Amino acid sequence: MENNYLTILGFIAATFTTISFVPQVIKIWKTNETSSISLEMFLLFSFGVILWFIYGILKKDLAITVANLFTLVMSSYIIYKKINSKKV
Amino acid sequence: MENNYLTILGFIAATFTTISFVPQVIKIWKTNETSSISLEMFLLFSFGVILWFIYGILKKDLAITVANLFTLVMSSYIIYKKINSKKV
Repeated sequence: MENNYLTILGFIAATFTTISFVPQVIKIWKTNETSSISLEMFLLFSFGVILWFIYGILKKDLAITVANLFTLVMSSYIIYKKINSKKV
Repeated sequence: MENNYLTILGFIAATFTTISFVPQVIKIWKTNETSSISLEMFLLFSFGVILWFIYGILKKDLAITVANLFTLVMSSYIIYKKINSKKV
């Protein structure tokens, strides 16, 4: 039972750290502006997220696994836009 | 033993997602520029990080606990600068 509460807490935590990327993605989508965003941040972050994803799978921790998969999609979009806006 | 390897993987993952904030903090520190950063992202993210921190403590998971504490410090700095640069 205690483990169930922990899983729920993990899911809520994961929901927040994951959906947090949505307003950033929307902001970039709308403005096409990424000047103050650090490319290095999102590259390092995404690599870490890939490792967290693997960690979640190996530890059979659903909250960590699913959250990091979604985060990876959004941070990849930010990296894509950052690199593209640099070309302009 | 398998759990030891997992802990090491967790620490490496944590190191990347945590140090990823360093180049963003440095960039903001140097340029004082936060226009394309989403305040909502870092507010939601920081709240999620606080929950991950609690999750780490309750699950006695050192990698998650320590990583999220450091991340919180850096994301708080970004929020502070974002709010301040808005005032200008």
